[in-house]
Amino acid sequence: MVDISIKNGRILTPKGFVEGSLLIEDGIITSIGEKEGAEHVIDAKGNIVMPGLINAHTHLGMTLFRGYADDLPLKEWLTEHIWPIEAKLTEDDVYAGTLLGCLEMIKSGTTAFADMYIRMNGAAKAVEESGLRGVLSYGMIELGDEERGEKELKIGKEFVKKWNGTSNGRITAMYGPHAPNTCSSEFLMYVREHADEDKVGIHIHASETKAEVEQIKAQCGMSSVKLLDSLNFLGPDVLAAHCIWLSPEDIQILKKKDVKIAHNPTSNMKLASGIAPVPELLEAGITVGLGTDGCASNNTLDMFYEMKMAALLNKVRKLDPTTIPAPKAVEMATVNGARSVGLDTGVIAEGKKADIIIVDMNKPHLTPRHDLISHLVYCTKGSDVSTTIVDGKILMENYQVKIFDEAEVMARAEERAKDLMGC
Amino acid sequence: MVDISIKNGRILTPKGFVEGSLLIEDGIITSIGEKEGAEHVIDAKGNIVMPGLINAHTHLGMTLFRGYADDLPLKEWLTEHIWPIEAKLTEDDVYAGTLLGCLEMIKSGTTAFADMYIRMNGAAKAVEESGLRGVLSYGMIELGDEERGEKELKIGKEFVKKWNGTSNGRITAMYGPHAPNTCSSEFLMYVREHADEDKVGIHIHASETKAEVEQIKAQCGMSSVKLLDSLNFLGPDVLAAHCIWLSPEDIQILKKKDVKIAHNPTSNMKLASGIAPVPELLEAGITVGLGTDGCASNNTLDMFYEMKMAALLNKVRKLDPTTIPAPKAVEMATVNGARSVGLDTGVIAEGKKADIIIVDMNKPHLTPRHDLISHLVYCTKGSDVSTTIVDGKILMENYQVKIFDEAEVMARAEERAKDLMGC
Repeated sequence: MVDISIKNGRILTPKGFVEGSLLIEDGIITSIGEKEGAEHVIDAKGNIVMPGLINAHTHLGMTLFRGYADDLPLKEWLTEHIWPIEAKLTEDDVYAGTLLGCLEMIKSGTTAFADMYIRMNGAAKAVEESGLRGVLSYGMIELGDEERGEKELKIGKEFVKKWNGTSNGRITAMYGPHAPNTCSSEFLMYVREHADEDKVGIHIHASETKAEVEQIKAQCGMSSVKLLDSLNFLGPDVLAAHCIWLSPEDIQILKKKDVKIAHNPTSNMKLASGIAPVPELLEAGITVGLGTDGCASNNTLDMFYEMKMAALLNKVRKLDPTTIPAPKAVEMATVNGARSVGLDTGVIAEGKKADIIIVDMNKPHLTPRHDLISHLVYCTKGSDVSTTIVDGKILMENYQVKIFDEAEVMARAEERAKDLMGC
Repeated sequence: MVDISIKNGRILTPKGFVEGSLLIEDGIITSIGEKEGAEHVIDAKGNIVMPGLINAHTHLGMTLFRGYADDLPLKEWLTEHIWPIEAKLTEDDVYAGTLLGCLEMIKSGTTAFADMYIRMNGAAKAVEESGLRGVLSYGMIELGDEERGEKELKIGKEFVKKWNGTSNGRITAMYGPHAPNTCSSEFLMYVREHADEDKVGIHIHASETKAEVEQIKAQCGMSSVKLLDSLNFLGPDVLAAHCIWLSPEDIQILKKKDVKIAHNPTSNMKLASGIAPVPELLEAGITVGLGTDGCASNNTLDMFYEMKMAALLNKVRKLDPTTIPAPKAVEMATVNGARSVGLDTGVIAEGKKADIIIVDMNKPHLTPRHDLISHLVYCTKGSDVSTTIVDGKILMENYQVKIFDEAEVMARAEERAKDLMGC
């Protein structure tokens, strides 16, 4: 017996929209087309059935910080607000924040995400419970301190060993050295070795701010990307977040090493970091996914918003309205997002894992329906997602979250935030 | 007997949040604080009660064009897609498109808007029915053709005479000369005379594209703003949309003449027009409101989205995260928006017209609640608005639209779009 049938949908496949039914068995898409009948039938009449969105860079524990400190200079924001609170965070706090983030993602159509943060056992526990697909890494900051580096790597390695491949493969792990200006060259090389040894990828921030690139240049005489390349750190398993301040040579290196990039337009705007040269990266043939970054610098996890922002920001940067057309933005948030975080999802096709969402098109702001792909990018909000399925399991159906108690998740997060920050 | 009491709200007043009740009588806010009791009581427990948002520049008839032609070069977009369809538009089409736009605005918390379009009797009829507050103008394009100019002004004047001050003052009218490069200097001066005679304002596009400013410069040897000033066209009753390509001298002129500006960040990004120097305009003390522009270039009418975009876009342009902090964005979308379109609303205070919305804060993406003003700008979506009241009349309550049949409005728009464009 087939587990789930989604009928009457407009199914977004790599070849365009297919009208009909989609069948799911044992977590896998087994049929797209006319076949019907299953234990559980979902009617998607008039609505879009599409791959769940992939958030390629976030820090879900920071969901507790949403709106805590905005519109501040970067240094003041970090040193006076974010870091002091992070120093107090427990695993329970990160669990509460991550679970709240998972709830928001389930409700806004994100089915997988790449997370880098601290107290990551709390995060992994939340992902385990939430039913989402998580690519998790412990964020290591070493600052050239060898002893600290040993400790950080130990935590990172234990996390990889404990969680990689768990929850039916829903949780995978990466190493998460924070950035080239918060980790020494020696430490980065050491991390590379361990990633090879453990056969996992590496998630890192790179070229996020002009200050970072200038600091590396002053210290090493080269750009952040060139430094990473000189350490033999780069490769197809590296997910580099931001990549804003790049030279043409940097772009060539990223292409040559098949590095994956997470573009975070909203965060880059809110923190005033700059605008990543996304059209140039795409032109070079580099895989670019989209991320929301953490809730302290966005302040939401809505990937529909991020698709629109990616399309808009790059148009105005290039003063060319043809830049990043809607289909490209959808690709970045789905199939390219999956590739960028090392997952074989982001596509609706027979044999693929069933990470699927249904977008409710029966809304005034989605009327009339000239072009559904345009609507997905320029009009749809996360709140238009009615159903979210991950690994063949229904996490939300017809706007009702099934996997856990929504009010409880919100109340726990509110309580933890109150304890931490007195809000 | 008091008509409506909104109790248990966090009421956003010019002095900050006040917890308590808000009373409405004969369309006017009569009490803010402890007084309770009314014919109709709305419980806003835990939620924000705030001024309805003001959309300072839009073309609601174009809501029929949502997603019709995106990601195209400006000239191709206009000449091959928008203009050919506009030539076929009837009053019924504009009625259908405007009503759909009104529905979207009611559902996303916009209570008043400035509209410039064609077949405006259709638009005015829709505004009359919708219960919203509309500042309407017939968009006149004269292209230096005197005969055409006479015809255009006749339509514009008839519209002003027929509609200004109607629907208990909910509808006001302006003259709408399209732009300094689509109307001759003679025509613009002629419009100015008639606006003075009829004591109404003027809504115009200005300095939207680099091409416009270069064309005016080539023809007249000065900027668009300077040209308008040289014609004695500018004044405090002029609402100028976009104002992107401005010199410091232009900004001084706009300040001196107390011209009001409608900033449309999403549209300016989507059409790749450029980034308006909003911090500089605010610094000069100029009143800047926010607009969505029409649905062909946004593609939504969600003013919460526009607040976030205004804050983000200007931060990254200035590479300064303190640019347009959240409270400033709220001001632009409320009290400054009202001023910019010539309305005495946008503020919750005793004696003011009751144009009020309730934002439902009981959502995962609005949790935890460190800073409600930050949440309004960076996290809230139009879909979080539960209740919309205009002129003391409830248009939507607890997510239920009361003023007309939602499905009927959507079906009519879909049908008109199908007839026009075959979608």
